[in-house]
Order: sequence, then structure tokens, then C-alpha cells
Amino acid sequence: MTRLDPLTKLIEQLQRLPGIGAKGAQRLAFHILKTPREDADRLCEAIREVKDRITYCSICSNITDVDPCHYCTHPSRDHRLICVVEEPQNVSAIEKTGDFKGTYQVLMGALSPLHGIGPDDLKIKNLLARVHNGHVDEVILATNPNVEGEATAIYLAKLLKPLGVRVTRIAMGVPVGSELDYADEVTMHKAMEGRREL
Amino acid sequence: MTRLDPLTKLIEQLQRLPGIGAKGAQRLAFHILKTPREDADRLCEAIREVKDRITYCSICSNITDVDPCHYCTHPSRDHRLICVVEEPQNVSAIEKTGDFKGTYQVLMGALSPLHGIGPDDLKIKNLLARVHNGHVDEVILATNPNVEGEATAIYLAKLLKPLGVRVTRIAMGVPVGSELDYADEVTMHKAMEGRREL
Repeated sequence: MTRLDPLTKLIEQLQRLPGIGAKGAQRLAFHILKTPREDADRLCEAIREVKDRITYCSICSNITDVDPCHYCTHPSRDHRLICVVEEPQNVSAIEKTGDFKGTYQVLMGALSPLHGIGPDDLKIKNLLARVHNGHVDEVILATNPNVEGEATAIYLAKLLKPLGVRVTRIAMGVPVGSELDYADEVTMHKAMEGRREL
Repeated sequence: MTRLDPLTKLIEQLQRLPGIGAKGAQRLAFHILKTPREDADRLCEAIREVKDRITYCSICSNITDVDPCHYCTHPSRDHRLICVVEEPQNVSAIEKTGDFKGTYQVLMGALSPLHGIGPDDLKIKNLLARVHNGHVDEVILATNPNVEGEATAIYLAKLLKPLGVRVTRIAMGVPVGSELDYADEVTMHKAMEGRREL
């Protein structure tokens, strides 16, 4: 009278996904059980297609369906400008603003000695090679505004500056639409420090 | 320069799952993208297998891989005792206690006029037929302790009592391991009302 095997297996597989615990996995599994067959098939098809059709760009390590990716080959993008981000999803966050027209370099992570992630685990060599070879004017460091991202940005700045390229870091400060009451001390400090003439 | 099609499709499919919003779906999609191919295949396989191998029992409407299910056919279960629950997952919650040895009737929902769910949408006919035909001594109403579950229990009690069967409702009160400070008024009221001699 134990639980049905296929259901147990599905719950196990769903629990491996990030942010999904035992209860959440059970809820999803029972939903999939109830859902029409075609919906379940569409989900599987979508998973398979992502694995089949999406790879990483050999230049910038962003996700792509053609190699090199659109950003690296498009004539309208400014190839003298490289924006460095940690993960492929960060690229879409920047593209949403609609006003960055340069290229990207995805590091595939950030330096994190605690998790055993050193410079060799990131796509830093690709970045250095691009700066060495090409006509790069500026590298914008858009790693996350946390300890690992900040350490990575400082590390990269040290490597890049001697190559004669302009190295900038995205601004940190109070987010637009928020209230000062809710800003933490470090953010407030960065906001004051980074103030600009009006 | 739009987002990649297969990724967008996967995010759309994931967003259809309960409790998963736009951000959550994006996070899961990027995880699936990063994950080894075999892990993605195992997840798909698990989904397909659940859809292929699990059906509903023709007697009690519980999920099963053989019809009728183990609960309905096993000689060691007490077939004069039927426990009525709303959903198949409620059966596992009761089975975990390990001390219920009767059979089940899954209603596949609860009465909810607001959502347009009436008696004909639930497996009430099956339950009545079982009580009519068989040697049923007691029906335990274990629908959820909320408005819909309570209304369903009262409705079923009215139908079942004239058939000469004992109809009981699971106890409502303060959950074991909790503190009285955190009990809401209705729960506390039920706990006082349902007090028993020590």
C-alpha cells in the first residue's frame, strides 16, 4: 500500500529543481497528474527543445541558437563596448532597458572561494582574449551588487586596466520607485558616495 | 534581438504550473538549461510515466496503476468502512497515520458554487451506489476543514443518513504540537465544542 512508483519518481525529480521543496513537488506532481495529456506533452517538448536547440556562444558564452550569437555578429551592435555579466539571464535584464547597444561577456558565475569557484572556473580568459585581440574601448562590469559580484568586478578591473581599456562599474544606489526609509545602510552609503551634480 | 524561442516557450509552459510565477518560471528554465541533458531527460521521462501509467480507480476514484486499486481489492482492508476525501493526495495524508484500515472514496473536489462546482461534478453517485449495494457500516467524512469541505460534508451527511449508515466527521481542534496562542477563534471554538472526557 505504498505510494505509486511513477508518482514518487516524478516528485523526486521535481524536488531537484531550485526553490521546490517536498510539499511543492507533491503539489506539482498531482497537478501534472490532473492536467490533460497534451499539456504534459507540451511541457516535455519545451524542456527537450531547450536542451536540443540552445547552446552557448563560443565568443561571449551567452545562450544562443546560432554560434556565434546575434549580439556578437550583429552589425548594429557596438563591438568596442563589452558588458560583463555573471549569468545569461542578466543579459535579458540589461536588454530590457533597450538602450545598451554593445556586446556581452557572460562569466558563467562569480568568484566565490567559499563555493570553490576561482578565476579558472569563469570565462575570464575569453574576456581577456577579446580585449587583447580587438578594438575594445570600454568594459562595463555589471556583475551582481553583492560580495561575490563586487569581488569579481575588482579582480577583473585589476586585470583589465593594464591593457589600456576603460573599465567601469554599473552604479549602485537607491532603486528607482523605492523609499529611502527602506534602503539599507550599505545601499544608502553607495547612493551618497555616487552622488552626481544636477 | 528578442529572447530565444525555445526558452520563451519553456518559460510559458512552466508558468502554467500552480504556484509558479514569471520570475520562478524563468529561474526554473535557466536551471533546466544549465542542468545535464540526462537530468532533463529523467524529468521528462517521469512526467510521461505518470501520464502513461497512472489512472483513476473505477470504484473509489483514487489514483492507481491497476483498476480497481489496491485499497478497493485488498482482503486486509475493511470494506465496511469508507473514508471520503476531496483529492487523491488526501489519501496519502491519511495513509501516513498507518491506523486507518478501511477503504476510500475520492470526490475529486468539493462543492463550491462560487467556482461552479455542484454535486454532479463530484463522485457522489459512486459513493451512494457503494453504500446502496454493499455492506457499509460507516462513512467517515474527511473533506477539508474549510467552508467548501464543511458544506460538502453536511450535504453528504444529509444524503447518507437516510440510507441507515453511520456518518462521522473527522475531529476539528487545535493541531498537536502547536500553541493555543496561535489558534484562531474558529479552531478554538471547535476545540472547546469537541472536548472529550479524560
